[in-house]
Amino acid sequence: MPRHDGRKPTQLREWKIKRKYTRSTPGSVLISAGRTTVLCTASVELSVPPWMKGQGKGWVTGEYNMLPGSTSPRKQRERGGKTDGRTTEIQRLIGRSVRAVVDMTALGEKTITLDCDVLEADGGTRTASITGALVALVDAVRSFASAEDARRIIRDSVAAVSVGIVDGVPVLDLDYPEDSAAHVDMNVVMTGAGKFVEVQGTGENAVFDEQDLAAMLKLARGGMKELAALQKDALGKSWPFA
Amino acid sequence: MPRHDGRKPTQLREWKIKRKYTRSTPGSVLISAGRTTVLCTASVELSVPPWMKGQGKGWVTGEYNMLPGSTSPRKQRERGGKTDGRTTEIQRLIGRSVRAVVDMTALGEKTITLDCDVLEADGGTRTASITGALVALVDAVRSFASAEDARRIIRDSVAAVSVGIVDGVPVLDLDYPEDSAAHVDMNVVMTGAGKFVEVQGTGENAVFDEQDLAAMLKLARGGMKELAALQKDALGKSWPFA
Amino acid sequence: MPRHDGRKPTQLREWKIKRKYTRSTPGSVLISAGRTTVLCTASVELSVPPWMKGQGKGWVTGEYNMLPGSTSPRKQRERGGKTDGRTTEIQRLIGRSVRAVVDMTALGEKTITLDCDVLEADGGTRTASITGALVALVDAVRSFASAEDARRIIRDSVAAVSVGIVDGVPVLDLDYPEDSAAHVDMNVVMTGAGKFVEVQGTGENAVFDEQDLAAMLKLARGGMKELAALQKDALGKSWPFA
Amino acid sequence: MPRHDGRKPTQLREWKIKRKYTRSTPGSVLISAGRTTVLCTASVELSVPPWMKGQGKGWVTGEYNMLPGSTSPRKQRERGGKTDGRTTEIQRLIGRSVRAVVDMTALGEKTITLDCDVLEADGGTRTASITGALVALVDAVRSFASAEDARRIIRDSVAAVSVGIVDGVPVLDLDYPEDSAAHVDMNVVMTGAGKFVEVQGTGENAVFDEQDLAAMLKLARGGMKELAALQKDALGKSWPFA
Amino acid sequence: MPRHDGRKPTQLREWKIKRKYTRSTPGSVLISAGRTTVLCTASVELSVPPWMKGQGKGWVTGEYNMLPGSTSPRKQRERGGKTDGRTTEIQRLIGRSVRAVVDMTALGEKTITLDCDVLEADGGTRTASITGALVALVDAVRSFASAEDARRIIRDSVAAVSVGIVDGVPVLDLDYPEDSAAHVDMNVVMTGAGKFVEVQGTGENAVFDEQDLAAMLKLARGGMKELAALQKDALGKSWPFA
Amino acid sequence: MPRHDGRKPTQLREWKIKRKYTRSTPGSVLISAGRTTVLCTASVELSVPPWMKGQGKGWVTGEYNMLPGSTSPRKQRERGGKTDGRTTEIQRLIGRSVRAVVDMTALGEKTITLDCDVLEADGGTRTASITGALVALVDAVRSFASAEDARRIIRDSVAAVSVGIVDGVPVLDLDYPEDSAAHVDMNVVMTGAGKFVEVQGTGENAVFDEQDLAAMLKLARGGMKELAALQKDALGKSWPFA
Repeated sequence: MPRHDGRKPTQLREWKIKRKYTRSTPGSVLISAGRTTVLCTASVELSVPPWMKGQGKGWVTGEYNMLPGSTSPRKQRERGGKTDGRTTEIQRLIGRSVRAVVDMTALGEKTITLDCDVLEADGGTRTASITGALVALVDAVRSFASAEDARRIIRDSVAAVSVGIVDGVPVLDLDYPEDSAAHVDMNVVMTGAGKFVEVQGTGENAVFDEQDLAAMLKLARGGMKELAALQKDALGKSWPFA
Repeated sequence: MPRHDGRKPTQLREWKIKRKYTRSTPGSVLISAGRTTVLCTASVELSVPPWMKGQGKGWVTGEYNMLPGSTSPRKQRERGGKTDGRTTEIQRLIGRSVRAVVDMTALGEKTITLDCDVLEADGGTRTASITGALVALVDAVRSFASAEDARRIIRDSVAAVSVGIVDGVPVLDLDYPEDSAAHVDMNVVMTGAGKFVEVQGTGENAVFDEQDLAAMLKLARGGMKELAALQKDALGKSWPFA
Repeated sequence: MPRHDGRKPTQLREWKIKRKYTRSTPGSVLISAGRTTVLCTASVELSVPPWMKGQGKGWVTGEYNMLPGSTSPRKQRERGGKTDGRTTEIQRLIGRSVRAVVDMTALGEKTITLDCDVLEADGGTRTASITGALVALVDAVRSFASAEDARRIIRDSVAAVSVGIVDGVPVLDLDYPEDSAAHVDMNVVMTGAGKFVEVQGTGENAVFDEQDLAAMLKLARGGMKELAALQKDALGKSWPFA
Repeated sequence: MPRHDGRKPTQLREWKIKRKYTRSTPGSVLISAGRTTVLCTASVELSVPPWMKGQGKGWVTGEYNMLPGSTSPRKQRERGGKTDGRTTEIQRLIGRSVRAVVDMTALGEKTITLDCDVLEADGGTRTASITGALVALVDAVRSFASAEDARRIIRDSVAAVSVGIVDGVPVLDLDYPEDSAAHVDMNVVMTGAGKFVEVQGTGENAVFDEQDLAAMLKLARGGMKELAALQKDALGKSWPFA
Repeated sequence: MPRHDGRKPTQLREWKIKRKYTRSTPGSVLISAGRTTVLCTASVELSVPPWMKGQGKGWVTGEYNMLPGSTSPRKQRERGGKTDGRTTEIQRLIGRSVRAVVDMTALGEKTITLDCDVLEADGGTRTASITGALVALVDAVRSFASAEDARRIIRDSVAAVSVGIVDGVPVLDLDYPEDSAAHVDMNVVMTGAGKFVEVQGTGENAVFDEQDLAAMLKLARGGMKELAALQKDALGKSWPFA
Repeated sequence: MPRHDGRKPTQLREWKIKRKYTRSTPGSVLISAGRTTVLCTASVELSVPPWMKGQGKGWVTGEYNMLPGSTSPRKQRERGGKTDGRTTEIQRLIGRSVRAVVDMTALGEKTITLDCDVLEADGGTRTASITGALVALVDAVRSFASAEDARRIIRDSVAAVSVGIVDGVPVLDLDYPEDSAAHVDMNVVMTGAGKFVEVQGTGENAVFDEQDLAAMLKLARGGMKELAALQKDALGKSWPFA
């Protein structure tokens, strides 16, 4: 049974990465997966939060936001003093995912903030955010570090993809219609070397068994290879890894 | 290598469930896992949130909070307008986990709020919360429904346990010292029938591979059986499931 | 005319004090007055608020909170940036009451926070909080001070009780149904030596005269003696006072 | 021993009441007690809060605020989402005090808001607020009710005064320097007929006995007679009471 | 065509300035323009905000607030964490307007806060605020500086007036009924020497052309001369300017 | 004297307008002026705010936000419950500017929200926002209205440009370095027919005279013609105006 957009279960959407999209931050990446479009910028500050001072270590943090016009109906801005639960979860995930590959001591007392602002949302905004943020991070680190130093600071690439079970079939890289219909939804974050950073599987008013889990992890592993290649391709000579 | 408290890798802490701990709510459960102690209350309201009105369906939601004295140093109350990210994540997890086994149409237009207030925190507060909340939920549902109706409303029991890799060894039900030392930390939510509701594994500035994942899932499955039995035992004749 | 629960006008509810209820704070007291149940913890921090630094004095503060499930209908958490007026009043009262018996210079540059979290509310939560907080405070002070030093830091015990006029009759220690029906409601905070710390009498859409006031103060004095004895009994050898 | 401003212990400061100070609200009273100056306005709205609708009853509420320039050093505005505890306590006291003399059923489904904005603060701002608010309330009620109806709506006048023990001597109507030096501080709210509405006595890091209490209540009673006379004088023909 | 209150198009309302209205701040001015009444106080603090420390410069800032009873229907207090847009705009305008005539280096490391609290609002509250704030500022500066130094700190006087087009006719100093009916509304801030500090013209669901603009500016210039004279008159011997 | 980027005083930066940049809202325009880049989306809702219901009229509102990475150093998100003053001023200006050309009765009971999110900030973000928002508005209106109806709903185009005095020379369309150096800064909003909607001139710690004002208005008029032409060109056949 073909997917609603004609893709095979194992097929990613069309992903594109455009570096140096804006010039106000050392890292600025426009990443798209089908219609989902995220602007990932990486800002560098030469200090760390108060609770980290004097340890010689750096800090990497992520923020996530959907622009009001990124979705229909329009999403209200989170200005009333309250960041919604989904936003909080996603930005914590982005931060953890990227920190898993950064050596904070090699980074030194700097803070890098990865801002992932969703311009258009069609499913998979958190996975696009992580995948784009890595590229912005590399550009930001390269703005003050040699290739060799960058490789010490960033130990490996990291990317993310979603998998899920739609109409009983495990599929890769769900768009919004699929995401809404999925009974199980899983986000997998992996390094370029193929190790897990994060596995988050959730039954949406449903449950799943070990076989479902195995099928989804296999799909994720396939997608992840393509995304790592895409990151490498986008970074070209700036790619710091082996 | 024995664990710091002498447990085997496959061994749970001592878990206890005390029902009807307070009398102001139809469900009120004091659950403890070692020193971790959580008061789970279930309140019933004969209405649903505005966005659900008129659909004939109910709603189940969870809230989580650590009392200031539950930990040392003292934890500040979240009154300044901001619920912290960890709290948000945990209460969303509690809600999703319990909703996975509830038939909202069978529940009808009622809201059940599961409040999980941590009296003492020594690791695993979210898994104790979910495990205790199920028991409080059953008591709350039984306050207005027959055993037969309760079985239609709650399709199965649900419980949760943590697993992790500490000093290279996969262990079950981490306490706080283990949790702080773990390189990989996973929370598994399962139904009484042995299906997954939620799998959340995170490398803490570390990564993990498929073999680690398999070892942790196996430990979790073992612990879950004991917790389901404990829930059944606590509920005694109120246990609505087969 | 007997009271709805059979008590005489001069009779307290059954009060119980359980020390060392949790182990994460040096003082941890579960106090109950009939169904009203409050967990009072005392945390010690080896510093003082910025505006007190360098004066060689300590600080004692109180916080008060009702758990959502402590009452029916469920009470919403105060997370939306706003502590309600009643909560504010009560926690200011707790702080003032306990500070009245503490010698801040003898305490030295430490902050003791007395958290009073209501697990079940059936009237008199503020008086139970003050009475329990004193016991938690003594345990906390004894965690770093000798009996002799503790006696210098805490000059006397302090406890509180409510009195009111219900159906024209002055009664002691009102529970929730009585509190709702009372035309006059008074909270009295006294030291072990029988001095007033605070007298707060309020007509609830009603007024009262000097005779009413005298009758209520007499009842309060009687109750207070019993509560001071209860505190002494609970603390046993830890009781620092003469 | 004379007081720092030459008054006798039983002597009020100079109190003045100016009605119709502004014209945007039906009640508008500028009240001063020595240098303490408060603008009390009474606004009428032809509806009640949602939780009171359809009961045929009205509502009276008070708000209190100190202008930033009313004190030195300047007081920050309470705009950051948080009303401070003292403000909360005072505005609750104002509301309760005035409601004690209002018949909500006679008022009907209207809300009267009594805004007490302190233009200059020199001690006793809460007692000036209550005393002025009563006058503003009468003017507001007379804007829609006959003298006879007003007398049914407002059953009696209400006023407030502070007493305290300064250097061991009970004194009436403390100004700011006396208030800062007082060991015991008491606010008494009474009706024109001489009944108590509220008695709030607090030891400021000190305690007091029954004799102190009696002395203070006697002083308060004396001051209250003068304030009731001042209110009557200010209202002239608008005075609705016998 | 005469204006609704009988004024000529070129005529100001009756403006009055009363200095030293309260005594808790060095500058305290009650200014009225017809029924519009604003209390402008100037507080001096011997420090500057953190971001200005160590530069040897001072800071002048404005705050604006309408008392709830200043208008009908009553205006809610801005306590819920949110200052409304109009308030923000006005207080920024007050600050910029006054700073335009202050030499921050001559002032030295002090902060002067100009609080403009509207007691009664009948149009033109922002222009009355600026005009009164200048007078309060002079009094505050004179509290610590000689006439000569004051002249170095405050380079010139500043005042403000509104102009608008009502029923096709350009008019000066609009009151509330005119303001509501105006199609174009302009606020002009000028120095005593006749230079512009700020020109803000807005079509209210309408547009205007260069001729309208010229007519309004001419009216403003006329009004400004009278206001500067009024300020000079109020300050008498304290007037620091040539 | 040439400008730092070689432009003549009368010369705009290079402006570009890209329609249909995202597909989740009926209007979506990416507008750039030199490096300044703003995404303007127009969302349509088939209802109006509560205070406008039942009048048969529509509502148009604007929101403005700078992405954190749009500037260096990074700008913090406005999530802490407080929208800063500058943001508030700008979004009120956008709303007023566009409403000046919309016939709310012709629009009918719909709300159009114009979100202006700044991707990169190099001066003039508010003028780019207004100029782009008009184009997004036209596209949004055309999504439900014929060309003829659109012309009735939107009476004319509107655009905005900044002018200022830098080093004593009046210049058009300031970028960030010029904006920082300008002594006078003016934003002019005009309709396609050449009428003013808004004129806001501010001395930045400086003052200006009528001659300066005239010179700036002349420059603005010139720039505005080019911007109106650019809007017309971008809209092509969708241009609804004569």
